[in-house]
Parts: sequence; structure tokens; C-alpha cells
Amino acid sequence: MKTISVVRNVLEANDRIAEMNRTLFDEHGLFVINLMSSPGAGKTTLLEKTIDALKDEMGIGVIEGDIQSSQDAERIAQKDVQVVQINTGGACHLDGNMIRDAFDSLDLSLLDLLVVENVGNLVCPAEFKVGEDVKIMILSVTEGEDKPAKYPLMFRESEVLLVNKIDLIPHLDIHLEDFRTAALSVHPEITVFEVSTKTGEGLEGWFDWLRSRVGTPRAS
Amino acid sequence: MKTISVVRNVLEANDRIAEMNRTLFDEHGLFVINLMSSPGAGKTTLLEKTIDALKDEMGIGVIEGDIQSSQDAERIAQKDVQVVQINTGGACHLDGNMIRDAFDSLDLSLLDLLVVENVGNLVCPAEFKVGEDVKIMILSVTEGEDKPAKYPLMFRESEVLLVNKIDLIPHLDIHLEDFRTAALSVHPEITVFEVSTKTGEGLEGWFDWLRSRVGTPRAS
Repeated sequence: MKTISVVRNVLEANDRIAEMNRTLFDEHGLFVINLMSSPGAGKTTLLEKTIDALKDEMGIGVIEGDIQSSQDAERIAQKDVQVVQINTGGACHLDGNMIRDAFDSLDLSLLDLLVVENVGNLVCPAEFKVGEDVKIMILSVTEGEDKPAKYPLMFRESEVLLVNKIDLIPHLDIHLEDFRTAALSVHPEITVFEVSTKTGEGLEGWFDWLRSRVGTPRAS
Repeated sequence: MKTISVVRNVLEANDRIAEMNRTLFDEHGLFVINLMSSPGAGKTTLLEKTIDALKDEMGIGVIEGDIQSSQDAERIAQKDVQVVQINTGGACHLDGNMIRDAFDSLDLSLLDLLVVENVGNLVCPAEFKVGEDVKIMILSVTEGEDKPAKYPLMFRESEVLLVNKIDLIPHLDIHLEDFRTAALSVHPEITVFEVSTKTGEGLEGWFDWLRSRVGTPRAS
């Protein structure tokens, strides 16, 4: 008897499409980030600040993933960069095929950096590749330092963790250094930046990391 | 040709098991809550405060759902109530069958209120019944007032919304009343309590709501 695992099959089909996306991104010399977090950790605000800081240095595009609504894409569109909204219609994550559908709406030849803002969710997005070079996570300090132990896959899959909203630390019963310790305990190689997307504190390190990874932009 | 929708089939099978759970709960005169939120919104802390306030009035049991780890169940166990930890092993939500497996570890005849703390996630848990009487949500003010519009299903499915961490409002660029407005715009009948599980502010209204719904406890 042949048994087909539906879940494995779905993941393998997705991996195949993600690989095709990745090939296309590579042909365009594009650095692609899959940006993940809980709802409300600050993904869109991070993108706004990042675009403000770097859009004169490199071509930036954004794919916004949400269950429904286009509020985030509208915020990003204010920044005068290429942006596409994907509404997953209930699905808890983006996948390779949804990203493929967004290609028609983007001129990849003008981009150096493409950020895919995933659905706010600490579980499902970690399992579905979209064709990214790296996965990056944001964790708000208000979520608590127990999150890496409770949602380890996403922290293990991510190359960079931004610990956000550090301006709120004085008002919480929590120590900032505990977040770094907790993240390193599930992923010893993860790069951690402590930031506030509200005040701008700590963001310079993140911008420098991005500059080093995007390499020589086509714009320059 | 017969086409089988895998997703619909999964949901229907779950509904059937949830219905069996519900029948069993009803036989025991048990009020059952499916408690949902983003990661770190304060589900476990709310439970701790609720148990402290009400455990002399009614028999309380807790089923803790997490991807992995048993930190939450250990916190609840300190309160000297019946608690079971379910590790979903990657799944982004609890389902009826997982709850069924927990029955062997609980003496339902001693309980008036059973709280099922779901996996921290604003998407998947809304689709899978566990046999609950009501779904209840917590939203932390740090997550932003745009969440009802972006994750409407969970807000529509919930009878009560607790807007938590209101002690942080003075440190955020946000108005407390906007959360109530946003929730009511997707679910006009939802009952909203603004609370701080840290300071205790606003929790009395929640406790009274629980008292009214649990009815006459068997302990009294």
C-alpha cells in the first residue's frame, strides 16, 4: 500500500516553487528577505524606517502579506517604492505560489532588495519558503522572553532577530538581555539587534547589516 | 468525478469530535472557554489572576496548548488546580482530538470551569473548535488597534475581547478607545473589557462575567 502524506506533499510542492522563485531572484541579482513576527511586533514600521534610511542607496520593493485588508501596503506605498499586497484569504502564511503571482506587479530589474512581509504568526510562516535568501524575525519585548523556547522553529530558521520596542523596557518586568540569551539558546548563530522602531535606537546596526548583504546596488 | 476537499474534510472531522467533547462537557455541567491570542498577549497571566480570584468559588481546570515546552502548565500548576499540557509538535492550533486525549488526565466531575489556552496565534485557532461554550480573545494594546481589521475571523468568533496591558497606554502612540471601536466594527456584539493583568485594573468586570456564565458552582 502506498501512503501519501498530504502535509509533506504540500511542503515539497511549495519548496519546488520557492526554488523557481529563488532562481529568478538570483538572475536579477536581488537580495530577498522573508520577514516574520507575531501580529503587531512592528514589521511594517521597521520597513518604513528602513525604506526612509536606505531608499536613496538601493532599489527596494515590498510584498505585503495579510489575511485581508491592505492597510500595510497603503502605508508602504506612501514611501514611493514598489509594493504589492497579497491577501491570503484565511491562510496563515505566504507561500511560494502567492509570491509568484506577485511577480507580474513588480519590475524586478529596478530592485536590489525585496522584502516579503509575511502574515503575523509565529508558527506557520517558518515552514513555507517563498524563495528568500534569508528569514528575519522581529520579536517585541512586550511578548516576553519565553517565545524562543515556545516557538523554536521560527527562531532556528531566522538568520537575524530584531528585538523591538526596547523603549518600553523601563515599563515592563523584564530584562533586555534575557531576549538575546533566550534566542541564542535555541539558535546559537543568530544575529541579534536590539532596536526601537519608534525612537530609532539601534537601527543603524540593522541598516549596516542590510548594506553588507545587499552588496553593490545596481543604482550606484 | 468526485472531488474531495482535504481542508473541508479536516474541519468537518474536527467539528464532529468537538461536538462529542461538548456533549461530555455538558453532561458534567462544565463551562468551557477556548482562550486565544497572539503570542505574549497575556493568556497565562490572565489565567493566573483569574484562578487567584475565583478558585475558592468554583472548580477550575486548565488545558495548556503549546507547540512545545511546558512552561505555561508549570506556572498554572503552582496555583494548585488541575492542569494538562498539550504539545502540538508543530501544529499552529489545538483541535478537538487533542482535547479528547487530555480527558484521561482530568477529573471533570470536580470542575465548573475549564479553560483551554490555545497556541498563541491570531489565525488558525479560530477555525478549529475544541468543544468550547465560548471563544474568548486577548489583544495586547502593544499589538496595535489595526488587528481586528487584519484578523477578522478570530474577533468575529469571540464572544468576549479582553484588551490587555492598558497600563502601557501612556507609553504608546495609541488611544485605548480605538481598540473597542475597531473590535466592534468587525463584531458589533462582542463584549469588551479593558484590563491590565499586571496591575489588576479592570479585571473585576471579567470576573463578574465569568461568575454569571459559570452559574451555580457545584462546590457551593
